Amino acid sequence: MSVLVVGSTALDSIKTPYRENPRLLGGSASHAAVAASFFGPVKLVGIVGDDFPKRYIQLYRRHGIDLQGLQVAAGKTFHWAGEYEVNMNNRRTLATELGVFETFTPDLPDVYRRTPFVLLANIAPALQHHVLDQMRRPRFVVADTMDLWLNVAREDLLKLLRRIDAFVLNDSEARQLTKEDNVIAAAKKIHRLGPRYVIVKKGEHGALLSSPAGMFISPAFPLNKVVDPTGAGDSFVGGLVGYLASSKGPLEANLKRGMIYGSVVASFCCEGFGLTRTIRVARDTIERRAKQLEKMVRF
Amino acid sequence: MSVLVVGSTALDSIKTPYRENPRLLGGSASHAAVAASFFGPVKLVGIVGDDFPKRYIQLYRRHGIDLQGLQVAAGKTFHWAGEYEVNMNNRRTLATELGVFETFTPDLPDVYRRTPFVLLANIAPALQHHVLDQMRRPRFVVADTMDLWLNVAREDLLKLLRRIDAFVLNDSEARQLTKEDNVIAAAKKIHRLGPRYVIVKKGEHGALLSSPAGMFISPAFPLNKVVDPTGAGDSFVGGLVGYLASSKGPLEANLKRGMIYGSVVASFCCEGFGLTRTIRVARDTIERRAKQLEKMVRF
Repeated sequence: MSVLVVGSTALDSIKTPYRENPRLLGGSASHAAVAASFFGPVKLVGIVGDDFPKRYIQLYRRHGIDLQGLQVAAGKTFHWAGEYEVNMNNRRTLATELGVFETFTPDLPDVYRRTPFVLLANIAPALQHHVLDQMRRPRFVVADTMDLWLNVAREDLLKLLRRIDAFVLNDSEARQLTKEDNVIAAAKKIHRLGPRYVIVKKGEHGALLSSPAGMFISPAFPLNKVVDPTGAGDSFVGGLVGYLASSKGPLEANLKRGMIYGSVVASFCCEGFGLTRTIRVARDTIERRAKQLEKMVRF
Repeated sequence: MSVLVVGSTALDSIKTPYRENPRLLGGSASHAAVAASFFGPVKLVGIVGDDFPKRYIQLYRRHGIDLQGLQVAAGKTFHWAGEYEVNMNNRRTLATELGVFETFTPDLPDVYRRTPFVLLANIAPALQHHVLDQMRRPRFVVADTMDLWLNVAREDLLKLLRRIDAFVLNDSEARQLTKEDNVIAAAKKIHRLGPRYVIVKKGEHGALLSSPAGMFISPAFPLNKVVDPTGAGDSFVGGLVGYLASSKGPLEANLKRGMIYGSVVASFCCEGFGLTRTIRVARDTIERRAKQLEKMVRF
């Protein structure tokens, strides 16, 4: 079954201590859509300016991503610039130029409205609501977020939590949202805000799924070297929902396995700048790494 | 088979935002020995002063711990005082009074010298060497350490690494020892310093085993509430070596399972001040929690 992905479609200029990379394809929706595309059909919702490089449109197409929902507007594509320290857990934003994103309204093409799986990748909660308003009885809705929205759009986000099946956020966001220092306790509090499934991303330490059936602990794939972690969280959630949409059988088991696949796609993402490593991956490379990861937790 | 445990035997005064607890039983050897005792016989090597409470001697005895190697000297028992913040990952030392520990020489009773499993819990590397010098062909030697020894006894520690089978340290210590920011890369570097098995503790994020057969990722048991993490690392390594000594079959598989048991005992340790929760645990409580943890990583 197919996945609708809405989020940001951007150009990322990423600086690390070792290299500078101007105007890579980035944004939460780009990472999530490419990650999901390894498992099945994806419909993208986003906006780019008339400066958006054709080769990035071709990149989406090569991954079979449906672009009927990608608006091309007069103006500049959303541009983000950031710099990482030697310790890749520390980054700072150098520039955020919203461009055409400022006036984005994610209106869906008619053919998108019955998509069974919806991934509301990181974007303003008001826009996530707007997408949900247009959907006709989706089977499963997953939302991701970022710290910014906890600060500037908390009420919208809290309302969103009552409309979704699974909420994905990172550990510091979970603490911020619940004012609870312990991540496990924070996850339990988030259930009370609405979502049946709460997924807490912990970067290199993996991710936790809290569900009515209990906890599931998903490892991150151990990497010797992280080149650029930008988009790893988006890749994780994209891989997760992509796998979920492609799978039959009990949801709970698929969610767990989906987290493993999400971790694997995220690990490829970290091995190159932007999407450069991810797009060289094939489904069988993903399978191989998923098997390796499975072996690393078996005892 | 039995385990020899050498390390500090101390009185810990532990302050948290919620409570103060003066002069609890503490020290690396106390935590490790009690943790190991759930799985089989333990021989303790340490030193206490003549102020050491009788009830703590009785506590060791109730856990069947052989105390022939516990020296009682005129003077004060090693006393450590520390304070935790609301975020339990942050603690500061308020006082370190070495007392009789200052002149400690861990001379082994003759009957200790053929113990097959040796756990050199956190203590000065020179003393860890001194214990190894007295052992007659131990089957498996595990050493733990702390950041202090990386700073003040680096050469001793590097020499020790060539004499042991498994080295246990936490992630920040692994970075400090190797000047390598990536923990996976750090573990690989540590192999080159000697140990066939490198175990990196990551607190609430679990632990990693790096071995010639590959990586094993062990989760931490997720806790809603951490009361006092003091001694959790010592409990982890005690449970690990205790399990290992009690197990037949291939070492590699036992090490993995040992890490799970170590994580479980460490989780109990965190649920009470000092050893207060750990000592109320029975082997079947440990088994139950190990099964729960196993379920949380199965997919």
